[in-house]
Amino acid sequence: MKFIFGIDIGGTSIKIGQFNLVGELLYKFSIPTNTEDSGKHILPDIARAIHELDILESDILGYGFGVPGPVSNNQVIKCVNLNWTEKDIVSEFGELVNNYYIKVGNDANVAALGEITHGSARGHHHAVMITLGTGVGGGIISKGHMIDGVYGAGGEIGHIKVDFDYNFECKCGTKGCLETVASATGIKRIYAHKHNAKYSLNQSYTDISAKQVFEDAMNQDELALEVIDEISEYLGYACHILSLTINPSIFIFGGGVSKAGDFLIERISKAFKKYRFINPDQYEFTVASLGNEAGIFGGYALIKREN
Amino acid sequence: MKFIFGIDIGGTSIKIGQFNLVGELLYKFSIPTNTEDSGKHILPDIARAIHELDILESDILGYGFGVPGPVSNNQVIKCVNLNWTEKDIVSEFGELVNNYYIKVGNDANVAALGEITHGSARGHHHAVMITLGTGVGGGIISKGHMIDGVYGAGGEIGHIKVDFDYNFECKCGTKGCLETVASATGIKRIYAHKHNAKYSLNQSYTDISAKQVFEDAMNQDELALEVIDEISEYLGYACHILSLTINPSIFIFGGGVSKAGDFLIERISKAFKKYRFINPDQYEFTVASLGNEAGIFGGYALIKREN
Repeated sequence: MKFIFGIDIGGTSIKIGQFNLVGELLYKFSIPTNTEDSGKHILPDIARAIHELDILESDILGYGFGVPGPVSNNQVIKCVNLNWTEKDIVSEFGELVNNYYIKVGNDANVAALGEITHGSARGHHHAVMITLGTGVGGGIISKGHMIDGVYGAGGEIGHIKVDFDYNFECKCGTKGCLETVASATGIKRIYAHKHNAKYSLNQSYTDISAKQVFEDAMNQDELALEVIDEISEYLGYACHILSLTINPSIFIFGGGVSKAGDFLIERISKAFKKYRFINPDQYEFTVASLGNEAGIFGGYALIKREN
Repeated sequence: MKFIFGIDIGGTSIKIGQFNLVGELLYKFSIPTNTEDSGKHILPDIARAIHELDILESDILGYGFGVPGPVSNNQVIKCVNLNWTEKDIVSEFGELVNNYYIKVGNDANVAALGEITHGSARGHHHAVMITLGTGVGGGIISKGHMIDGVYGAGGEIGHIKVDFDYNFECKCGTKGCLETVASATGIKRIYAHKHNAKYSLNQSYTDISAKQVFEDAMNQDELALEVIDEISEYLGYACHILSLTINPSIFIFGGGVSKAGDFLIERISKAFKKYRFINPDQYEFTVASLGNEAGIFGGYALIKREN
């Protein structure tokens, strides 16, 4: 029996999935990410953990990696959270396991690949996944393949400028990025802004979670509803942009914020449809279904689909 | 000797190029586009014109088409200017010439392909071409292949909403599309708007060409300069969006407006660089070099590169 490993390297833990060749997840586990010494322990730690499974290397077809940073042509450009600058995983990890059938992608792109092969976008060949968490990540699939681009910024839609009013500062150095308004942080920020404006407070009101804003909105709280409608407008605009660039058939929403489900998705879809160009009704909007397993499934797909 | 035909179908004429297998243009000619009777004469006219060249069909490797409308997976979705609704060129033209090695793309995407194989973006594998004429067209190449998307709207960047102030109506039915501000028509429109505002005129001032606005700007006319700076901002913003979606290494500008050359390109590049995310200095900005031959070169490349 042959196996494929899908490996999702995050800033605090590394998820490892062992698959058979038809894409069934046989075993999964995770190990902590040791980012010390410029992150040089990370790949040996992964190799060791897999070695301990006692599988013959000749029974392992290949390894698909997702990493939290820009990747182009299987080469990691940088991963701030791992303390990596440029990293050639194919050579380094390949030498450790004596198998060079290794593919690498940005974690958001790899998660998107997982969703089209095993998740809620199964069967779609053109898809965009938008992950709404502390930040906003994006993954683009065109004709079944990840779009990583030249400098690894393919699908970095969290940093598209979509807001020209608040112009909140983003940690990337510019202002008004999608991430500044549509992440969990952005939702809190806009709520605070509107709350303070409404009640003429001088001090920033930040004592509310994004989850609470959604709950209040579902309970018809006027201010909370206004906030959710507004972030849906930003997300609808982002989808509009994507419909006229890579033109996917489905938009998949993942991350903590997407747990709001249809309440959010329907608003985004409605905002999107205002930009009528080609068949706005034909686009699907859905919530991601693989949760934090999307990365390992995508890692599997990186190897299997190239095969 | 074997040949490839690159065919660029426009609303008034059809350009046909005969290439050898190393991409040399051996012969080119054009025939008028007969759009009568739902455009049913177009493909037979092309087949007849090529037949008259007296080349053995067995010496023709294939035919690459560019058409003025959305295309997905070689299927034409519609071409308003040709009076075509859905059109299966592969079957219909294939039957006429008894050769089914036929590829079809949207004309702007095919022109972009021509520019990366034979024009000013030669050697680039990830590129975006923006055509600034009466309208604004776009073509996207990722990993050497055209992005046409699911509904053929891949690269339709002329209809991305980039203007939130003027909100000029677009012929697509929405407002504020890139085309409404950055086409030749858009340049005239913004000039008229600013001119009227400055001199408090009630009547619209439209008696100026986009070319004249550029000439005035080059002669330091304040109002004209303001207009060119402003449309450069819109185009810089569009490039920002594209850098974070498909992430190309080069932006190519074609169409009549691009004749303004460096005067325009440098302003767009400067506007783009304000959105700092990943290495803004690494992106190239250039003017297209193939003019109206880009389509036939791209048609050649459709066949040759798949081969």
